[in-house]
Amino acid sequence: MGSGKDMGHFEFQLEATDPQTAGRAGRWITPHGAVNTPAFMPVGTLGTVKGLLPSQLRDAGAQMVLGNTYHLALRPGPEIVADHGGLHGFMDWDGPILTDSGGFQVFSLADLRKMSDDKVVFRSHIDGSQLELTPERAVQIQEMLGADCIMCLDECPPSGETPEKIRRAVDRTTLWAARCRDAQTRADQALFGIVQGGIHPELRRRSAEGLLPLDFPGYAVGGLSVGESPEMMYFTLDHTVPILPTGKPRYLMGVGRPEDILEAVCRGIDMFDCVMPTRNGRNAMAFTSQGPVRIRNSIHQKDQSPLDPECLCVACTRFTRSYLRHLFVAKEMLGPILLSLHNITYYQTLVRQIREAVIGGRLAEFRLNQLARWKAHP
Amino acid sequence: MGSGKDMGHFEFQLEATDPQTAGRAGRWITPHGAVNTPAFMPVGTLGTVKGLLPSQLRDAGAQMVLGNTYHLALRPGPEIVADHGGLHGFMDWDGPILTDSGGFQVFSLADLRKMSDDKVVFRSHIDGSQLELTPERAVQIQEMLGADCIMCLDECPPSGETPEKIRRAVDRTTLWAARCRDAQTRADQALFGIVQGGIHPELRRRSAEGLLPLDFPGYAVGGLSVGESPEMMYFTLDHTVPILPTGKPRYLMGVGRPEDILEAVCRGIDMFDCVMPTRNGRNAMAFTSQGPVRIRNSIHQKDQSPLDPECLCVACTRFTRSYLRHLFVAKEMLGPILLSLHNITYYQTLVRQIREAVIGGRLAEFRLNQLARWKAHP
Repeated sequence: MGSGKDMGHFEFQLEATDPQTAGRAGRWITPHGAVNTPAFMPVGTLGTVKGLLPSQLRDAGAQMVLGNTYHLALRPGPEIVADHGGLHGFMDWDGPILTDSGGFQVFSLADLRKMSDDKVVFRSHIDGSQLELTPERAVQIQEMLGADCIMCLDECPPSGETPEKIRRAVDRTTLWAARCRDAQTRADQALFGIVQGGIHPELRRRSAEGLLPLDFPGYAVGGLSVGESPEMMYFTLDHTVPILPTGKPRYLMGVGRPEDILEAVCRGIDMFDCVMPTRNGRNAMAFTSQGPVRIRNSIHQKDQSPLDPECLCVACTRFTRSYLRHLFVAKEMLGPILLSLHNITYYQTLVRQIREAVIGGRLAEFRLNQLARWKAHP
Repeated sequence: MGSGKDMGHFEFQLEATDPQTAGRAGRWITPHGAVNTPAFMPVGTLGTVKGLLPSQLRDAGAQMVLGNTYHLALRPGPEIVADHGGLHGFMDWDGPILTDSGGFQVFSLADLRKMSDDKVVFRSHIDGSQLELTPERAVQIQEMLGADCIMCLDECPPSGETPEKIRRAVDRTTLWAARCRDAQTRADQALFGIVQGGIHPELRRRSAEGLLPLDFPGYAVGGLSVGESPEMMYFTLDHTVPILPTGKPRYLMGVGRPEDILEAVCRGIDMFDCVMPTRNGRNAMAFTSQGPVRIRNSIHQKDQSPLDPECLCVACTRFTRSYLRHLFVAKEMLGPILLSLHNITYYQTLVRQIREAVIGGRLAEFRLNQLARWKAHP
């Protein structure tokens, strides 16, 4: 479609900006409904947020979910998803969906064979078959998957790469972004550009300045939470987010811990995704108002108190810590299910509270109190 | 409490008897509510029906569930369950619950060390620790677990055992039943006697005649579905159920396939339990109105039809066969969850239809049609 495409399917309404931080509260209208921002998207890699039904995600407060293009392209393949009318029909999620480009997994999960400005050649981590990805193909697959929000193919170099290599990745990402923009044919999908540049402010600026002329309907910050310290991530956001346009949603990819989300909102980020709530939940670790709980710990053996007394989810209102521990000790599926459900609820509750703090103009105070609370319960 | 205890907490109301078969429809009132019979109890071995929340069991139509005393006694131990006010509070199931005596697992799962009329000595299948079970201890543990319906300790010999050994198991079971009866202290639990005797009508009669004087509030038929043919099971039921009192519930332990349940109801059985719907569900096998479906089969890869067009469960109304297959191929937890939920719904629907056929006086016709249908879809 090229630039200048009609984005009438989307509208980003900025509802409030915090007086003391860069925090924002908004509402992003998509073809599958509105999302309150800041928003946290549970990760449904293969068209399912592991162990949970769509109705349970809704009950937990999730409004938008993420699917991984790399995984879905390999299994079941984009054609089968498209036959279902896209991911929405396939996984029975009628709210907004975001897919990534697949690039991150090609670099982190697959066996990378060759990369050029033209394309990436790799081997599938499932059966070793040789495949290739181009910017055009990444958009084409995402059009078949049919998410509301799709991502440009980017190059995400590992943490600790030399500035020269990161600069080349930035330039390639800019080149690919233009090709993705040109390849897009659907007007009902918001294609986001991805800012790269590692932890180098000047490279982040270079990346943003390369993407902004393409006038994307939203921008993602990629290449963070890949091994750098939290402080370096916050520093990088300090030097990246202010360059991005105010009136468009900003998405911090793959982040992160609850404190990272709070710090990133304070720096102007609107959207998040992370496997942490579900992955940790499956591994018996719960985020609670009283700090992290490792439910397998024997101190919970006879504990009849709820997992989190402040939480209203099924795990916390219907069961005891003793029962939840028993489920994990006995290797029962219901343990991972209930802790995943709880952790998603925890994340959704957190972003809702952050949003309310922004709207109330008290995000700085909320941040102080919340950080002190997390510090008291490490 | 000894015999003559007040069973005012329980009432078995016979609502209808089929004119052409021995089928019955009833309503069994327990301290935790009523159960329509014929009833199928999903198996929650360790205090959870694998992968499903209590609310999902309710939605599937289940009214009563089963817990396994052997497993719960080892993990988390009866004290912890008792601290929760029993299994009801522990697993958040407020409807009726049945526990077995633990004997079956001691014989089938544990490392059996020594058995006498006095007690059974065995090693835990989890940590090898040496434990023993007596009739008194089996009742005591079940009183701590607090189910509505509990079972006498019985000896269940393997299929193919000599008649002489089976006769001795019958006599020991009778002896133990009297000791269980005497050991019981709670009036809000219905203690069932268990009829043993293998596939030998005269030994079944011997067993029943030993138990009937103890005037249990209900009787179980044990020692079936342990390797004998379906025909031998039906033959045995033909010679066992008529000896049991009409006004009390009859429970066929561990049975079985849908056709076994139908045949057993036609022979006068009221209650059933079996791991088959959940175990098969976890292994990608679904019971459907069109016969068994192995959802991993590649013929389902692009099949957008529902798993079972006649079923109203979440798996069948919200997802396609193609999606369900994808979940199993990708090893996603939601696959086992959804097929377990469907199979439980299938079993509950089956016993409800059987019950309606009894009430309508048309069980013989229902049986013919249903068996023909199963035969057409083997």
